[in-house]
Amino acid sequence: VADEFDIIERLRKAVAPRAGVEVGIGDDTAVLRSGIDDDPRTLVMVDLLAEGTHFTIPPATPRLVGRKALAVNLSDIAAMAGRPESAFVAVALPRARGEAFAEELLAGIHELAEEFDVCLAGGDTNIWDGPLVVSVTLLGRPTGSGPVLRSGAQPGDWLMVTGPLGGSLSGRHLTFTPRVAAGQALHATVELHALIDLSDGLSRDVRHITCEQGYGAVIEAAMVPVHSDVPRDLPADERTRRALNDGEDFELLLAVSAEEGQRLLSSPPVGCSLFTVGAVTDSTDRVELLWPDGRREPLEPHGYEHRF
Amino acid sequence: VADEFDIIERLRKAVAPRAGVEVGIGDDTAVLRSGIDDDPRTLVMVDLLAEGTHFTIPPATPRLVGRKALAVNLSDIAAMAGRPESAFVAVALPRARGEAFAEELLAGIHELAEEFDVCLAGGDTNIWDGPLVVSVTLLGRPTGSGPVLRSGAQPGDWLMVTGPLGGSLSGRHLTFTPRVAAGQALHATVELHALIDLSDGLSRDVRHITCEQGYGAVIEAAMVPVHSDVPRDLPADERTRRALNDGEDFELLLAVSAEEGQRLLSSPPVGCSLFTVGAVTDSTDRVELLWPDGRREPLEPHGYEHRF
Repeated sequence: VADEFDIIERLRKAVAPRAGVEVGIGDDTAVLRSGIDDDPRTLVMVDLLAEGTHFTIPPATPRLVGRKALAVNLSDIAAMAGRPESAFVAVALPRARGEAFAEELLAGIHELAEEFDVCLAGGDTNIWDGPLVVSVTLLGRPTGSGPVLRSGAQPGDWLMVTGPLGGSLSGRHLTFTPRVAAGQALHATVELHALIDLSDGLSRDVRHITCEQGYGAVIEAAMVPVHSDVPRDLPADERTRRALNDGEDFELLLAVSAEEGQRLLSSPPVGCSLFTVGAVTDSTDRVELLWPDGRREPLEPHGYEHRF
Repeated sequence: VADEFDIIERLRKAVAPRAGVEVGIGDDTAVLRSGIDDDPRTLVMVDLLAEGTHFTIPPATPRLVGRKALAVNLSDIAAMAGRPESAFVAVALPRARGEAFAEELLAGIHELAEEFDVCLAGGDTNIWDGPLVVSVTLLGRPTGSGPVLRSGAQPGDWLMVTGPLGGSLSGRHLTFTPRVAAGQALHATVELHALIDLSDGLSRDVRHITCEQGYGAVIEAAMVPVHSDVPRDLPADERTRRALNDGEDFELLLAVSAEEGQRLLSSPPVGCSLFTVGAVTDSTDRVELLWPDGRREPLEPHGYEHRF
């Protein structure tokens, strides 16, 4: 319909036909087809970003919000060691911000999709008088021996992260690189017991692969890599707490046997940084923070929570 | 996380394990697996409903809004003659409305999911200070010879609908039955040239399977079934226009050869109503409305539009 603003119609024109997408934008549903050699399993996840809750404009731009809306999903696919394939974008666009705003949002999604070889295969455009809401559904496929779940960590496993943590909300949360390549490379190199991405903060997210599986963890404060985005003039302890609690790092957290951990440290996959931050323990439901002077304290889950 | 309200966590407890859903709610992504005998193709669609735009509460209830959020997606799967399989729910919940509201919304989604054998396999819960936004992504599989697209109608084809039209916004738009069974039954009975669901109104939606394919259509005013939800005290012409333009009917519109159309009228699939409303013509881009007295007028696309 010519006189209807339709971000999805624009996507259709911007998006090249892609193997695997038999019917893309423009019919009642998309039709996806897996290749002969593909793992027949499909990975699916959805994430919704809401203005005033996950971002404000400014300092964010619509382009960066679009980018982030896809990036957080890519991070989840990375945490399954998956390969992203197709994305579906549902938006509620603020009427008052007009069409140029919508185009910038779209450009941000489109650019990152191209970079990660993701086909924008459908969506739903809505214009309303509320703030911006953008929800992206991402479909992908497992790689190698299959998806890497949260559930396989064992006491004695090393806990490792793929990059320094903390201070993301000063801007990195809008521009981070989802660790899709690292997830696949790690999965191809060692036996990953568990894999997850850090969205709420290490202090909270570590519980998913330890406490929720019936185990505990010890995190060594001195080994937690602190990002340069955390102000340097803070006391060292406080900088470590920021790295543990700030959230929105979108690095991967993995659990591997000590042997595999050693192997990763001595020859990490190309382009993949790795930092050992602690170990899985058999102390049910207990996560401890170990300071260099030997002090131990419970590591409470801080990070982000949704509450009424 | 115990102190976090999480609609998705509640779904996890409410949802029975389902074949095909290898990993449901609770990991980084869902993992879906197609059965050995399944069509390997996946149907995907997403639809977003926003408070104040698609519904207001009251008169709608959160339960009915949840129901509708899934129902509109089921209608799109129906329009591919598909079988729905799994749904992913992203919500932005208004903080001020509290937890009981969220639970009602969830119950509305859950009940319809059970009715249509759809597994709630993932989602994203957010609480904010804005109005309610709920976005559902639905995955399904083709049935029979495959998905029925918008593109196969031919001049001379009959245009048929699966039920009376108009007046939906007085309440039916919240309670309609998605024509999933009818879509599959029709696909199993005749050769469908094109199939679509009526969301924006027949006057607008008919263009998708005619004008957008290089053809035109003639709609016979006297044959358009007018729903009893359209006020009976309106003039007959006006009632027909309401049926053509009101939208949100969520009936199916199909194009079939005249022979197949005859066959459908004489022995419709069990439980499936059918009304012939017109025919596909070779008048490029022209949709005409034919009145019983022989008058012809262009049928303009009314129905709903999103505009800045």
